[in-house]
Amino acid sequence: MPPHATSFPSLGPSKLSIKTKQHCLNVKQLMGQESGIIYLRGALNILRDDTDVEIKFRQESNFFYLTGVNEPDFQFVFDFASHVSYLIAPFIPETERMWKGEPDSVEEMLQKYDVDQIVYDDDLARLIEAINPSSVFVLDTTDTTPISKVVPMDKIDICMLKPAMYESRLLKFPWEIQLIRKVTHLSSHAHITLMREVQFGKNESELQALFEWECARNGASYQSYLPIVASGKHAATLHYTHNNKWLNRKDNSDMLLLVDAGGEKNCYGTDITRTYPVSGKFSAEAKTIYNIVLKMQQAVLDRLRPGTLWTEMQNLVIRILCQELIRIGILVGDQEEILKLGLTRAFYFHGLGHSVGLDVHDVGGRKAGVFNCLGDEEDNVARSHFLLDRPLEANMIITVEPGLYFNDVSLKAWTGFPELQKYFNLELLQKYRKVGGVRIEDTVLITENGYENLTIAPKTVDDIEALMAATHPRN
Amino acid sequence: MPPHATSFPSLGPSKLSIKTKQHCLNVKQLMGQESGIIYLRGALNILRDDTDVEIKFRQESNFFYLTGVNEPDFQFVFDFASHVSYLIAPFIPETERMWKGEPDSVEEMLQKYDVDQIVYDDDLARLIEAINPSSVFVLDTTDTTPISKVVPMDKIDICMLKPAMYESRLLKFPWEIQLIRKVTHLSSHAHITLMREVQFGKNESELQALFEWECARNGASYQSYLPIVASGKHAATLHYTHNNKWLNRKDNSDMLLLVDAGGEKNCYGTDITRTYPVSGKFSAEAKTIYNIVLKMQQAVLDRLRPGTLWTEMQNLVIRILCQELIRIGILVGDQEEILKLGLTRAFYFHGLGHSVGLDVHDVGGRKAGVFNCLGDEEDNVARSHFLLDRPLEANMIITVEPGLYFNDVSLKAWTGFPELQKYFNLELLQKYRKVGGVRIEDTVLITENGYENLTIAPKTVDDIEALMAATHPRN
Repeated sequence: MPPHATSFPSLGPSKLSIKTKQHCLNVKQLMGQESGIIYLRGALNILRDDTDVEIKFRQESNFFYLTGVNEPDFQFVFDFASHVSYLIAPFIPETERMWKGEPDSVEEMLQKYDVDQIVYDDDLARLIEAINPSSVFVLDTTDTTPISKVVPMDKIDICMLKPAMYESRLLKFPWEIQLIRKVTHLSSHAHITLMREVQFGKNESELQALFEWECARNGASYQSYLPIVASGKHAATLHYTHNNKWLNRKDNSDMLLLVDAGGEKNCYGTDITRTYPVSGKFSAEAKTIYNIVLKMQQAVLDRLRPGTLWTEMQNLVIRILCQELIRIGILVGDQEEILKLGLTRAFYFHGLGHSVGLDVHDVGGRKAGVFNCLGDEEDNVARSHFLLDRPLEANMIITVEPGLYFNDVSLKAWTGFPELQKYFNLELLQKYRKVGGVRIEDTVLITENGYENLTIAPKTVDDIEALMAATHPRN
Repeated sequence: MPPHATSFPSLGPSKLSIKTKQHCLNVKQLMGQESGIIYLRGALNILRDDTDVEIKFRQESNFFYLTGVNEPDFQFVFDFASHVSYLIAPFIPETERMWKGEPDSVEEMLQKYDVDQIVYDDDLARLIEAINPSSVFVLDTTDTTPISKVVPMDKIDICMLKPAMYESRLLKFPWEIQLIRKVTHLSSHAHITLMREVQFGKNESELQALFEWECARNGASYQSYLPIVASGKHAATLHYTHNNKWLNRKDNSDMLLLVDAGGEKNCYGTDITRTYPVSGKFSAEAKTIYNIVLKMQQAVLDRLRPGTLWTEMQNLVIRILCQELIRIGILVGDQEEILKLGLTRAFYFHGLGHSVGLDVHDVGGRKAGVFNCLGDEEDNVARSHFLLDRPLEANMIITVEPGLYFNDVSLKAWTGFPELQKYFNLELLQKYRKVGGVRIEDTVLITENGYENLTIAPKTVDDIEALMAATHPRN
């Protein structure tokens, strides 16, 4: 029997009728401008190095946000005065159509995209001349974009668009929520498949391939980021993406596998991490560590609602982590003193979560400076535009992803300070090291009254062990 | 039962002991230089647009050729005088190791790669100063590479390395042949899986995902190029990569599917095309067209051996195509007259084949100008460096890929000339149009006495129908 003949649901590519016009109006409102135009250039087809091998196309996220166009070489203009949107399509000459196929006609593009007019790229100059905008708002400073050839530089504004775009992208419209819900559900199922399929003797790379296949056959042919499939101690390496180790029972029969991966469909992605034992059964140490992380996550989930301050949530999980590490004896001493010294950072050294959307670390969560273009503030925004430092609001989609890691580099550094050694029970620490690392990450929607967990893969010890029991009989 | 529990062979990532030093010596010999150094910079990690999403890393092919290193941010120096090779590794600070993991140690790198010395990148200037090379041979003119900061521009030569590298890459060493044989075999099996699995009601995208999964689970987690999965009339669009159409029996119950795809492993790829009926049974018209293409291919395969002129092979397939189109009545008139007018180009308008290796359109097949850096010739070489226009030699790996297409744009153009219309039987042509297009492409090795066909997916009408019969019972 063909293994996958009956299981492909009707989630394949289809023409979306994405209401992107409301995104343009939203951005305009946030900018507070009544005249001028937005100009965006979409992503181009890229060849690898000095070859003719095309790289798989991915639209630039801001361009997708305003247009819904997932094809290369488009441009876009939105006129603030008239509210008319112009999609500027690449003109494909007859000779190229033989190779690339017939492009969409003007009528087809008007049906497919939420724009008012289609213009071909050789008419860009005439279009701009006809609109005669007072200002042209663009995302970046590169002068290689076609617009700089047809508009004098003093009309081009590189400050105002980006912060408004970021702000606009933070709160999701209903159809965006539905897209992310769908991709989070199907990615959850891919995580479930991996829980069922993982076995000693397999390689991390096979599990990555399986995850990508499970997403792709359910309609998500992209990943929102490079998957992390990390077994044993590699789970403590946060950006581990080698994914090439064999799962060897001899190395560690209690080995955990950490899988941080999420599919992407129509440029909208998700972000999910699950950690579970390769054998199907948590060791005592793994269960202890796992339940600490679960407790940290649940404490945050219980408090998710509009108005919740993210910084308070970050403090909350650190406090729980500190309590728990003292309870099990890895950290020794007075809780407030340990918190003040920041010793939990030896075990947990990343953010608690971030916005998710067109980018996995989505934009818009910054409290301050988003309308400030110049100076250090802007640099800071640019560097870490995905940090969340404002109260939660309904229709934000964020991750909640506490972790606890036995990372060699981190532990060596922290336990290397003579004056700090008294706070660590080094012998007990050694016993827990083989746990490697645990992260539990859900993508959730903030609602008017609380939250909806879009992630539906099991995560309690009991649920994971029950799921894995069928394919992992105890030896 | 888990569907893939037992089928993953032991082809996962492993430490290769690739003998790249012989590549350096080969390039040196082709350059005829006794002093100076080669300097290459490997590919960097790239982030998508203005995000922190990493793009899946792929090493630059020339860099892999000389080093076997498949990690970002390396550099390489080979000294012609001493024959000493230096791998310049990125120095990863302690703080980054927490996130990225421990990099290979010097000892591990020396074991893993066929190089003599490891140097960290902050020592590049001292290394170059110590060697004090008379010339530095580099691949390109960009001055952004670190070498331009430590060597005066008048010592940097951008002419000699590239043609020697291209020449060297044309003839494969035994271990390269073995790698390409392996990836061609496993890709052939992926084609076989698609033949079994294709059904009306599926989407091209699912079949692409299945192909990639079949490659990945057998160890080829990259594709050598964007797969083409083209049903019906899309098969006539040579660079069709949308792969998003549903296979609808109502559109065309005799529909053919053309799949042009090949996996890549350790940067070495392959290139295979198969065309077959979605129903499992060729229609009369499809069979006729298919067998013409098969005849064209077989005529070339029969003549493959060292010394064969590729241009003669190209003329041969065009002659066969012309004969056959006259025989079945689509073209009408005198064969020599039709050949002279080039009317077969209405149906077949691409090259017959190309070298395959680290790039799918691999380098090195050009006869003339390969040692010429300046002027038009160089431009020409750069533009079409994968054309084959020299006699075949043993250890070349090439494709043989004739085709026959009913491409709307092409046919409209050719039959649009009033003076050419008498040569086309337009009524009969109309009858064949639903065949869409057929291409049959094998990757083959030229041997001392002939060739070895590395491609092992079935391709006769009988073999394909027999394979598909089990999963495609006739209705």
